[in-house]
Amino acid sequence: MTGITKAACIGGGVIGGGWIARFLLAGIDVNVFDPHPEASRIVGEVLANAEKAYAMLTGAPLPPRGRLTFCKTLEEAVAGADWIQESVPERLDLKRGVLTEIDTVARPDALIGSSTSGLLPTDLQRDMKHPERLFVAHPYNPVYLLPLVEIVGGEKTSAATIQTAMERLAPIGMKGVHIAKEIEAFVGDRLLEALWREALWLIHDDICTVETLDDVIRYSFGLRWAQMGLFQTYRIAGGEAGMRHFLAQFGPCLAWPWTKLTDVVDLDDALIEKIGRQSDEQAAGLSIRELERIRDENLVGILQALKGGHDGEGWGAGKLLKDFEQSLWAEAGRANTSFDPLKPLRLVETKVGPAWVDYNGHMTEHRYLQVFGDTSDALLRLIGVDLAYVEAGRSYYTVETHIRHLGEAKLGQAIHSTCQILSVDEKRLHVFHTLHDTVTGEALATAEHMLLHVDSKAGKATPAPAVILDKVKSIAEAHANLAAPEGVGRHVGQKR
Amino acid sequence: MTGITKAACIGGGVIGGGWIARFLLAGIDVNVFDPHPEASRIVGEVLANAEKAYAMLTGAPLPPRGRLTFCKTLEEAVAGADWIQESVPERLDLKRGVLTEIDTVARPDALIGSSTSGLLPTDLQRDMKHPERLFVAHPYNPVYLLPLVEIVGGEKTSAATIQTAMERLAPIGMKGVHIAKEIEAFVGDRLLEALWREALWLIHDDICTVETLDDVIRYSFGLRWAQMGLFQTYRIAGGEAGMRHFLAQFGPCLAWPWTKLTDVVDLDDALIEKIGRQSDEQAAGLSIRELERIRDENLVGILQALKGGHDGEGWGAGKLLKDFEQSLWAEAGRANTSFDPLKPLRLVETKVGPAWVDYNGHMTEHRYLQVFGDTSDALLRLIGVDLAYVEAGRSYYTVETHIRHLGEAKLGQAIHSTCQILSVDEKRLHVFHTLHDTVTGEALATAEHMLLHVDSKAGKATPAPAVILDKVKSIAEAHANLAAPEGVGRHVGQKR
Repeated sequence: MTGITKAACIGGGVIGGGWIARFLLAGIDVNVFDPHPEASRIVGEVLANAEKAYAMLTGAPLPPRGRLTFCKTLEEAVAGADWIQESVPERLDLKRGVLTEIDTVARPDALIGSSTSGLLPTDLQRDMKHPERLFVAHPYNPVYLLPLVEIVGGEKTSAATIQTAMERLAPIGMKGVHIAKEIEAFVGDRLLEALWREALWLIHDDICTVETLDDVIRYSFGLRWAQMGLFQTYRIAGGEAGMRHFLAQFGPCLAWPWTKLTDVVDLDDALIEKIGRQSDEQAAGLSIRELERIRDENLVGILQALKGGHDGEGWGAGKLLKDFEQSLWAEAGRANTSFDPLKPLRLVETKVGPAWVDYNGHMTEHRYLQVFGDTSDALLRLIGVDLAYVEAGRSYYTVETHIRHLGEAKLGQAIHSTCQILSVDEKRLHVFHTLHDTVTGEALATAEHMLLHVDSKAGKATPAPAVILDKVKSIAEAHANLAAPEGVGRHVGQKR
Repeated sequence: MTGITKAACIGGGVIGGGWIARFLLAGIDVNVFDPHPEASRIVGEVLANAEKAYAMLTGAPLPPRGRLTFCKTLEEAVAGADWIQESVPERLDLKRGVLTEIDTVARPDALIGSSTSGLLPTDLQRDMKHPERLFVAHPYNPVYLLPLVEIVGGEKTSAATIQTAMERLAPIGMKGVHIAKEIEAFVGDRLLEALWREALWLIHDDICTVETLDDVIRYSFGLRWAQMGLFQTYRIAGGEAGMRHFLAQFGPCLAWPWTKLTDVVDLDDALIEKIGRQSDEQAAGLSIRELERIRDENLVGILQALKGGHDGEGWGAGKLLKDFEQSLWAEAGRANTSFDPLKPLRLVETKVGPAWVDYNGHMTEHRYLQVFGDTSDALLRLIGVDLAYVEAGRSYYTVETHIRHLGEAKLGQAIHSTCQILSVDEKRLHVFHTLHDTVTGEALATAEHMLLHVDSKAGKATPAPAVILDKVKSIAEAHANLAAPEGVGRHVGQKR
């Protein structure tokens, strides 16, 4: 996959900031141009949220963060970039002007995406010299967690542009979805707008409050739509009789007086005030910052849950996360060929996320073993036991574990693990992991493991091949010079 | 909370079956009347799905399943029930007739709910002698996993009926949401209908395929709506400027040509065939049964993820799950006062869910410790270390763990854990857990733990009070007669 090597973001509000975070966290340098006096503060806040979210989202090794540069001119920002993303305010004249200016100073092979949520790409590209490289790349807030990008071409957009744009989104963990025909508001905002109009009527007519309406969504079809959409859900509802039968049954409803959509609600001061007041009540004292954090933590949890879907293959946005992590691991495997022989290997870096703690804010017991298991996995990848090796029918299995709890990892705490190889022979691999507070270095827990090299199809231990053993032995020999860790060889309840 | 003691379900299709499963799995006996020849097969299938889903959803102790009785007459089914749920086909004359008949034979204090997705309760209750007890209780498919029930009263429905209905839903893990005014289709289906109409236009006009449309939903706002609804999400989008500012900005869009909702699409044979064909392609060979299983597993994962939201307090549907589990544990604590002194305690029963396995279908390493941790928690509740005790500032913490892997737990496998107390003194509690295959009894793994009684505020060990020690000692004395388990006191790598 050909990824983006350098990005420029023109406009750095909440949406532009989300794009910037996506690029930087994927290791891509970003130039930003935004004359707004608050631009660097807003981008900084979005980036801080994104970094917190990513730390919880994945234990896979993110590449070194890209370099962020605020530029004084559009021309300076665009120089050298091969993906330029425009996220200025939603006015056709303004956007058209900015895009035309970008076009005149951009690299000849650069792609130009617009974050517009409703304007037609044909209108946006009208004055460009190279309109074939302009497309709509419409993301959703928060851009650093929601993967969707609607890709829409105008009359003059080339097919090659669309194809390249789709390909370049995958390495930054996003999902490009190509919309076949351009229409105002594309697909997502059309659907949102329809539901929004009906929602405004329901509040206007006092059928329910905004809290009740939100509860109706999040306790029912919201849960369905996080993992399947509208049609796939109804396909199941149709049962064995099938989708066509379901539609034939549903058809008559369209003629029923079930919506007020044929009329447009007047969003006057009274309705704005009513919604504002009900929304204040619903928030129950939670600030925007707190709601934002809760939302992000929930999205992280949902994405991780979907990563385990479809029998562990990953489903929907979770499959995308799984693929993203695998590419990160593969990249890290290529990079990480040397290590400091005077120290244990430093292998997993993460932060304690909200799904990992009990109501006291302490990390739950089994999450310690999750980090230690991830540490073993990282060691195995380092010595050549990667996905291809495992799929070919051999692996290392953990057969015995001894954990000591020395401190407490807490919500939001930065933690990392280290690994010391104690011994290795043809079949056995004896390791000692330590979980540290990243700030103080304090040891929070240790885990001693015995792993066996197995033929996973036969279900029995078998000698590891030389190609693996050579790598693990080179590390073990270096580690032989390290002191034996405190706590090795203990049994449960042994006096210190 | 006054729960339902006996339920009757009139109509046993997919929706009726979902209600039946909710009741039975909450320990409530259910009488069913449905003259459809396939009723018992359909109910059986829904119930099997529900049982699979619940086994993955929670490790909390479900009560003994209620008794399911198919009755020959409506009168026989309704006899003795204090909640009667009508789920017959969506025709006013049919529903009104059935509800009027229920009313004449039901217990005087019975509540009568209708599953109608669109009809007005005032129309349904017209001919009833006791119309004050009739209300709409509109659930969402799959009823056994989605918690929402829209509660809507008609002109003659009493306030007491609405209040009692809401209260009785919580103990079966559902969320009653009261809709203030009755309108056709209530709130959820109004919103769905609005979005559905727009979706049909998008397919009709070839803007996108059903798969693209579903992807747009599930990679973007579907993820948002699983945890916050429409208004709370927009409140955050409005940022510090607030909801009123957001609305004022959004207002003008309502006048833009952003939907085709002012016209009604003709769902003719051509459009039905187009959607049917695109839906077949989207399913990519997955059968309805497979899609249903994937959906349920995803919903389980999302609900569990939300259970960890809001700093471990639980958020939305996850908070509801957490509350439901706590009531199950409390109930089990009251019930479980005796044990067989000749055996280890049998404490946790569960099934290996899809989020717990690697791509090989084997249970992930740290999930073993999760079950062992749940086993320790169950033991602690049994000896009086419950939520109130922990909130008062004392608890037992695990300080040391030794795990042996003897076999492999696989996707869908029924497993349970047992616990043998090895020793106890004022501060220390030494236990040995075993994880078993429930069918064969085979030991899959063992865990030896040392726990310390702590003052959690001071962060140090402190003697347990007599009220706790007396309980744990009575079990420990019985267990002293059991043989020491094989594998006690081992260190990692010790020869057998």
